[in-house]
Amino acid sequence: MKNPVERLIETLLNNDSQKAALITSGKNRRYFTQFPSSAGILFITAGGAYLLLDSRYAEAGANKAKNCQATGYTDLAAKFGEIISAHGVKEVYMEADQLTVSMARRFEGMLNQCGAQAVLDGSLDAAIRNQRMIKSPEEIAKIEAAQAITDATFEHILPFIKEGVTEKAIALEIELFMRNNGADGLSFPSIVAAGPQGSQPHAVPSDYQIKKGDMVTMDTGTLLDGYISDMTRTVAVGKISDEQRKVYDTVLKAHVEAMKVVKPGIVCKDVDKVARDIIEAEYPPEAFGHTLGHGVGLDVHEWPGFSRRDETITQPGMIITDEPGVYIPGKYGVRIEDMVLITEDGHRSLTHSPKELIEL
Amino acid sequence: MKNPVERLIETLLNNDSQKAALITSGKNRRYFTQFPSSAGILFITAGGAYLLLDSRYAEAGANKAKNCQATGYTDLAAKFGEIISAHGVKEVYMEADQLTVSMARRFEGMLNQCGAQAVLDGSLDAAIRNQRMIKSPEEIAKIEAAQAITDATFEHILPFIKEGVTEKAIALEIELFMRNNGADGLSFPSIVAAGPQGSQPHAVPSDYQIKKGDMVTMDTGTLLDGYISDMTRTVAVGKISDEQRKVYDTVLKAHVEAMKVVKPGIVCKDVDKVARDIIEAEYPPEAFGHTLGHGVGLDVHEWPGFSRRDETITQPGMIITDEPGVYIPGKYGVRIEDMVLITEDGHRSLTHSPKELIEL
Repeated sequence: MKNPVERLIETLLNNDSQKAALITSGKNRRYFTQFPSSAGILFITAGGAYLLLDSRYAEAGANKAKNCQATGYTDLAAKFGEIISAHGVKEVYMEADQLTVSMARRFEGMLNQCGAQAVLDGSLDAAIRNQRMIKSPEEIAKIEAAQAITDATFEHILPFIKEGVTEKAIALEIELFMRNNGADGLSFPSIVAAGPQGSQPHAVPSDYQIKKGDMVTMDTGTLLDGYISDMTRTVAVGKISDEQRKVYDTVLKAHVEAMKVVKPGIVCKDVDKVARDIIEAEYPPEAFGHTLGHGVGLDVHEWPGFSRRDETITQPGMIITDEPGVYIPGKYGVRIEDMVLITEDGHRSLTHSPKELIEL
Repeated sequence: MKNPVERLIETLLNNDSQKAALITSGKNRRYFTQFPSSAGILFITAGGAYLLLDSRYAEAGANKAKNCQATGYTDLAAKFGEIISAHGVKEVYMEADQLTVSMARRFEGMLNQCGAQAVLDGSLDAAIRNQRMIKSPEEIAKIEAAQAITDATFEHILPFIKEGVTEKAIALEIELFMRNNGADGLSFPSIVAAGPQGSQPHAVPSDYQIKKGDMVTMDTGTLLDGYISDMTRTVAVGKISDEQRKVYDTVLKAHVEAMKVVKPGIVCKDVDKVARDIIEAEYPPEAFGHTLGHGVGLDVHEWPGFSRRDETITQPGMIITDEPGVYIPGKYGVRIEDMVLITEDGHRSLTHSPKELIEL
């Protein structure tokens, strides 16, 4: 696989030396260069890519940034001028979805002074989105390494979940275990939703104390080396009712059956439909009010998604969550989530925690 | 003091019913309404303010949002149309420093369809900046409550700092204490920089183990109810050298003397100069490479600042940090930081932790 800079030069820039791309957002800059920094500008021309860094990052960037030449600057406009005249650049694509109006104007002014035009038509955003959807083997390995910590955390947390423990205490123990076991942080604030809170898909951990007969939904993820993992499991504390059991079994069936159809060359929305049909055979449509899944990578929510409207055709290298849920307002909820990698000949789940109902 | 919505209607909108402001960024929306949400749009007209919320937030917003009428929506363009025609709005100011190019275009299109023009000239950003610089008594109380947790954390952490303990372990203990004592989170990732790391003002906590004779700089803050606190203290582990002591005493003198001159009606940059002159009498200018201080509030860095270039005239209600530092590359560093409130007749520090040198 060509590196991300080479891919952008081929597709968006069409190997045309008069075209260039200016990439300023942190995640996209990191995607192209593998270099994390809180500031910096990546200037990609068909003839070469330059990572422009201020004095804080110039030395580290020169040693660590990939696919580009890292270079320090003090006068940004002058640096733009050098690159533009060295390559004869006339048009510079910028990120319409990322730049603020003020920043876009500032860069546009600098480019105009060097005789180049800014292009803010969304085509750079679309090109990056299309590239980031397909993960390289190195990116897949990073996401699996993050998920390995999440799997270990799930095993660790099970004996901690018992009557009287609060959702907040569980969330804190999850975070501590992740950080003590190599995580750079959380992918997102953990959701720990017990008993009636379980019916809110995005509940914030509270002081609610777990009771016997509760189900506890934990939606957690590890941040490692810039990439995220995302997993949900629901467990029972003590014996649960037949009604709860039926909800669990329905969600598990929707999760398993949806995953079975995942392979290259299918339409994303068709995967959502498999899960939705199973759930809607038993529960009203509003019981499963969110989409089946979203892409993951440098961001927790990337493209494409297993949603009712996403007509993207699946390709090997995409990683999308499979996370059906059923939420019964005021009573309880269940969600089960794996990350699914689309492979050449089908799919592989990157999540290894058990998903048969656990009664603690 | 009038509420923030009333102030904006008077200043930017000039009580003109044809003018309105569209506020979409999270911090600014919270500033005007006191309502935290991850999404929503505040539409302020001279005749009334509307907080437009989707189904996730509509009910909570109706109960909790201040200074406006909270209302749910499903079709945003239609809602814009209702408000624009009810008030005869012709011009709508938007946040050029906050909106992405794509979002600005989307809103602009909706406004144009209702016969109103978007204004993206930075005047709304400037008006909000000017308002947010002056904290209300309620905002000051929130920042003091956040700082009370930081002060308690400093007292708690002192016995924990000893030979062999790592910077990372100290940072984790600080975070746990804050969160176990009511904090919503950290204001920013804690800086814990021991020994030679102390010479980097923005060091990231490492596995470096503290040695006798090290100085340890801790720059930490608590997030509480949307507002932040920010404090730095440097402590010594065991006996330190006369050279280290001199650095400490110089920084403390710069900190104390700068604070003494703070009162309403002075120029911000003159406060920076007081501290800088004291330090530069003993050390080269590059030993104190950052500004003396920055505003704090909903953001860790707000306006105005005690910097070499800030010509803002101080007013009661401003809260600005006083944080001189001296950094000797490869050897050590010292920084001491309080938050200073400008009062009617002078100033008051919001920080109560001791700042005389502590030798642990």
